Amino acid sequence: MITAKNCVARLSRYKSALNRFKTLGFVKVFSDNLADAVGATSSQVRKDFSVFGISGSKRGGYKIDELIEKINNILGKNEVQQVIIVGAGNIGSALMNFKGFEKEGMKIVACFDTDPTKVNRLGNIQVLPIEELKSFVLNNKIKIGIIAVPDNAAPGVMEALLEAGIKGVLNFAPIQLKAPEECVVNNVNIESELENVIYYVNALQKSRKT
Amino acid sequence: MITAKNCVARLSRYKSALNRFKTLGFVKVFSDNLADAVGATSSQVRKDFSVFGISGSKRGGYKIDELIEKINNILGKNEVQQVIIVGAGNIGSALMNFKGFEKEGMKIVACFDTDPTKVNRLGNIQVLPIEELKSFVLNNKIKIGIIAVPDNAAPGVMEALLEAGIKGVLNFAPIQLKAPEECVVNNVNIESELENVIYYVNALQKSRKT
Repeated sequence: MITAKNCVARLSRYKSALNRFKTLGFVKVFSDNLADAVGATSSQVRKDFSVFGISGSKRGGYKIDELIEKINNILGKNEVQQVIIVGAGNIGSALMNFKGFEKEGMKIVACFDTDPTKVNRLGNIQVLPIEELKSFVLNNKIKIGIIAVPDNAAPGVMEALLEAGIKGVLNFAPIQLKAPEECVVNNVNIESELENVIYYVNALQKSRKT
Repeated sequence: MITAKNCVARLSRYKSALNRFKTLGFVKVFSDNLADAVGATSSQVRKDFSVFGISGSKRGGYKIDELIEKINNILGKNEVQQVIIVGAGNIGSALMNFKGFEKEGMKIVACFDTDPTKVNRLGNIQVLPIEELKSFVLNNKIKIGIIAVPDNAAPGVMEALLEAGIKGVLNFAPIQLKAPEECVVNNVNIESELENVIYYVNALQKSRKT
C-alpha cells in the first residue's frame, strides 16, 4: 500500500503536467516528457501506467486527452467530489479560497468551526457551527473531510468525523492522526516540511565547510 | 538521501510529540511512546535516533528536554531561521499568519508579490514588491524561501530565488520544481494530497462491494 501511495501521488502529478501540456497546445506526450515534468524517470512513468493498465503505442506516445480521462477514472474524478473542512482559521480559510481544488473536480461544500464569530451562512462557502457537522455529512453523503484545527483539537475532530461517517481525511494539524481500517488518513505537516528544507540547507553548508 | 529524508521528517514529528508530552507533565519517554505518537514502530524510533547518535538508557528511556535539544541541534534549530514567502495570495497569507512556525524557531520575515495592491510595508509581516526580492535576501542573508504562487509563475520565481542566493525552497505551487545541486527543493502539492485521499476512499469502497 505504501508503494501504491507513491504511485497514486505521481498519477495526480502526471495529470497536472498533462493539463499544462494541453494548455501549450500539445496533443500527444511521450513518457520522457512526463518524466521530465514530474521529476521521475521515463521507465518509472511507463511502470506506473502499466500498474493501472494504461498503455501507449511505442512510436506515438500517449494521447493527452485519453490519458487525462483514464487517470481521472483511476483517481475517481469522473464525478465532483464534495469535501468539508473543519477549522476556519488561517489554513482552513486559505483552503476555502483555494482555486486548485475545483479545477481538479474537488469542491469544498462547507466549513465547520467551534467559534460562533466565524459562523457565516451567507458566504460563498458556508461556515457552520461544529454541532451541525454530523447532520450535514449524513444529509449530503460527504465522504471526505479536511482537518485544519490546532493539534490539541485534532483528535477530537477526527473522532467527530468518524462518527459522522467520513471515510477519508486530509489532516493539516501538526499531529499524526490514526484512524480505524475503514478510514484513510493523509497527514500533511507544514512545519515539518519546512524543517526538512532547513535541515538539508544546513547539512549541505556543513558538508561544504569540511 | 531519500531514506534520510524520511528519517528527518520523522525527527521533526518526534519533536512535536515530545513537546506535547512535555505539556502533559512528562519528563521521560520510551521509544514505545514516541512510536505510538508518530505512527512508527519502536524499533524504527530507536533506529532513527541511532542514525544521529542519540542513545537512551534501556531502563530509563529518554529525558524529554535532552532529546528536544538534541533534535533541535540536528535540525539546525539552535538559531531562529529566517524565511521569506513569494506570493501573498491565499496560501501565502495563511502561512504569514501561521503560528506553528515561530513556535518551532522559524520566522517569516517578509513576503513578496507582483501585485502592487498587495504591497504593505506597515503590516506585521511586510509585503514587498517582487523587484526588492534580491536585495532583501542578500542584505538579510536569507537562505530559505517558500513559493506560494500559481503554477505558471512558479518556475520564474524559482529562478529569481536561486539568483538571489536562496539555498532551500518549500514549494506549494502544483508543479514539480527542480533546482541545481546547491539548492534543496521540497514540493508540497495540496491538490495531489487530497486526490490521494479520494483515490483510497474510492478504492476501499470498490473493494468492499466486490
